[in-house]
Amino acid sequence: MACATRFQILDKAREVARRFAFQMVDTPSLEYAEVLLGQGSDETDKQVYRFKDQGDRDVALRFDLTVPFARFVAEHQNDLVFPFRRMQIGEVWRGEKPQKGRYRQFCQCDIDIIGEDSINADAEVLLCLREIISSLDVGAFTIRVGSRPILSALIQHCLFNKPDEGHASSSENIVSALIWVDKLHKIGLEETIKGLGGLPGASVDGARKLLGLLEFKKTGTELDKIRAFLLTQGPALDPIKLQLDRFEGLLKICQTLGKDQGGAVLPDISVARGLGYYTGVVFETFLESLPGFGSIASGGRYDDLASRFSNRRLPGVGGSLGVDRLIAALEELGKVVPAAQSSVFVAVASEDSNAYAWDVATKLRTAGIATDLALKSGKLGNQFKFADRMGYGAVITIGSEEVATQTVAIKNMRDGTEKRNVALADIFTQLKNS
Amino acid sequence: MACATRFQILDKAREVARRFAFQMVDTPSLEYAEVLLGQGSDETDKQVYRFKDQGDRDVALRFDLTVPFARFVAEHQNDLVFPFRRMQIGEVWRGEKPQKGRYRQFCQCDIDIIGEDSINADAEVLLCLREIISSLDVGAFTIRVGSRPILSALIQHCLFNKPDEGHASSSENIVSALIWVDKLHKIGLEETIKGLGGLPGASVDGARKLLGLLEFKKTGTELDKIRAFLLTQGPALDPIKLQLDRFEGLLKICQTLGKDQGGAVLPDISVARGLGYYTGVVFETFLESLPGFGSIASGGRYDDLASRFSNRRLPGVGGSLGVDRLIAALEELGKVVPAAQSSVFVAVASEDSNAYAWDVATKLRTAGIATDLALKSGKLGNQFKFADRMGYGAVITIGSEEVATQTVAIKNMRDGTEKRNVALADIFTQLKNS
Repeated sequence: MACATRFQILDKAREVARRFAFQMVDTPSLEYAEVLLGQGSDETDKQVYRFKDQGDRDVALRFDLTVPFARFVAEHQNDLVFPFRRMQIGEVWRGEKPQKGRYRQFCQCDIDIIGEDSINADAEVLLCLREIISSLDVGAFTIRVGSRPILSALIQHCLFNKPDEGHASSSENIVSALIWVDKLHKIGLEETIKGLGGLPGASVDGARKLLGLLEFKKTGTELDKIRAFLLTQGPALDPIKLQLDRFEGLLKICQTLGKDQGGAVLPDISVARGLGYYTGVVFETFLESLPGFGSIASGGRYDDLASRFSNRRLPGVGGSLGVDRLIAALEELGKVVPAAQSSVFVAVASEDSNAYAWDVATKLRTAGIATDLALKSGKLGNQFKFADRMGYGAVITIGSEEVATQTVAIKNMRDGTEKRNVALADIFTQLKNS
Repeated sequence: MACATRFQILDKAREVARRFAFQMVDTPSLEYAEVLLGQGSDETDKQVYRFKDQGDRDVALRFDLTVPFARFVAEHQNDLVFPFRRMQIGEVWRGEKPQKGRYRQFCQCDIDIIGEDSINADAEVLLCLREIISSLDVGAFTIRVGSRPILSALIQHCLFNKPDEGHASSSENIVSALIWVDKLHKIGLEETIKGLGGLPGASVDGARKLLGLLEFKKTGTELDKIRAFLLTQGPALDPIKLQLDRFEGLLKICQTLGKDQGGAVLPDISVARGLGYYTGVVFETFLESLPGFGSIASGGRYDDLASRFSNRRLPGVGGSLGVDRLIAALEELGKVVPAAQSSVFVAVASEDSNAYAWDVATKLRTAGIATDLALKSGKLGNQFKFADRMGYGAVITIGSEEVATQTVAIKNMRDGTEKRNVALADIFTQLKNS
């Protein structure tokens, strides 16, 4: 069931991405370990399945689709035409602690645009993802969009506002602070303030000031307040002014376009995202009907990821659909309808009816109806029991009488009504009515 | 490109399998090594990617979808309803010798029916695969169907016809002979005779006799000759008589049904199949336009595979589509049409035209047209160069004039003709004509 639902989600995602001109690309599941390690976070490094292959090479299973894609782009940069829009669907692996008794394998579905700095690229990714999610029957949702540079600037100026002390504003400290902010929704305000305030060079007052500015209101983070605060911090903030302008420009595009798509795009500067490679916009997506469910789609801008594999600057922005989480959401929302309900079972009373039964099945299949066929003729009771257990919507029975009259009997499995002597030409009408 | 073609193949395969009531099932890529090893052949054992995971468990990447499926069926036998029809699509891994400098990762697409002995199950698998291949635009093809028990009986009675010598008819010797027969089409008749004749207890005369009976004529192996030969070998051959009846019954079903499907089903008892788990019918599929291309779909009956994981007898029959080989075939046949040809690029002359350009793009996308949008406005020459390199079929240009008049200019990239001042309402007609 989960597998059928996954294909339904991916089919819709592919169709929307096709309309946004994203090309399907694939990379191998195995990469040299050095390609993957040190790219995500310490946690992903620890979770990587890594081994020596038959040629004693150090290889690993990818933990996401973004890092292998950056490697791919760098490797094929002379053949690709930029900006390059790609969609990739594939499995990724993260090894959890073994006591959990299971392997973690996820299906990811990513879209990315490489080779373009402009906020239009950020917007295309967000618009495409929004349309994909809108197509999935999960109800209202919100894409919360943050900005790594704006959040970093706030951390620096609220938390580490004494750059003369040397260690305070180091990028390492900012990363530690980002990790605390990332936990905000899990551990709550007070624990986050305590954690942030305890960082070297930081204070609880600074942490409180920071989290005050990050507060998420009905229409998102109050950007006016953030802008006003940052612009009092001196002339060194010109780059941040640019980031604020970009960020507000992006929000304007997303909020103007596709308003009827059902997904709100709101600013939330507290969105930090765990992975280390993000350098610009970052986002997460939440379902309104399942607020505690966690993000179902996330991503961001990563301007330096491909630089590890190439001298050329290849800025990128992308988003990833949490396919397994979406499956769970659809199940929880009761939106998963078993395919069997629209399927037909052809029951066969005696072996000499087999050929006719196959003709009938072929006719149904050619018309697009999912049709199961009894592989062994005989007791009809057992065959009906089978169809019932399978959840099939209708059973067509064929015995020597039906063969002789070139008809079938059709039983509606939902209400139990049966219609006998249905002519072959009337099967479809009869099935539709039943 | 290959990736887009793969999705096209898999979409068609899924649609046909759905109509045959196969359910989509998925199993993890990683299995405990003990599940996979000793199931395929010595060669697959050597090719398995195997390692210790974070919990020091001995795990491996699957080398096919059949063995993990057998494990799955045995594990879920109390929840599944038999006969159980499933389709599975997924990657499999086989590690080649490292000097080849690449990893081997294949996409497989399998259908199987578990829990049913009858030849109707064999037929459903063959009919479904034939319809899948018919839907793929690869032209005429032949499914060559063999029978492991008939071939084994022929080997035993042609090659090892002195059972009193003890070692002659051991199953180990029959497996060695099967491996030689499997090579027939690669190494030719004389080499195969030499190989078979050199087996302990065998003779070149016996090998010649065997290969004479296996000869593939226009309508396949001459089963009458085989039947006549085997029925002179004494009363111990009753089970083989049953196998001959089954085999001919299966051929009759396949040759009667779906004759308009374009794929012939012919007997070829020389089809041996490398994998050790087959116990009944075996088959391979060849394209008539690419005779040297090798099999594009193969499979067979494996009645004992699940027995390793379960006390219950769970006979199965299945087939696997060689997706990567089909992609290569479609490419070689020139049947792969780049999706870009039906895509549209929206070029934007100036930044103040962005909002209108996005409106136009949204309109096109909503109508189902794949639409790329310039992410940076400016020099149209560069934008046209980009659209040309991408292979897009049409470019819609938008500048301040178009914004003012709410029109667009459309250039047909194939013939270079341009139409200006096209009203928004006329875009679709214009694109269709261009």
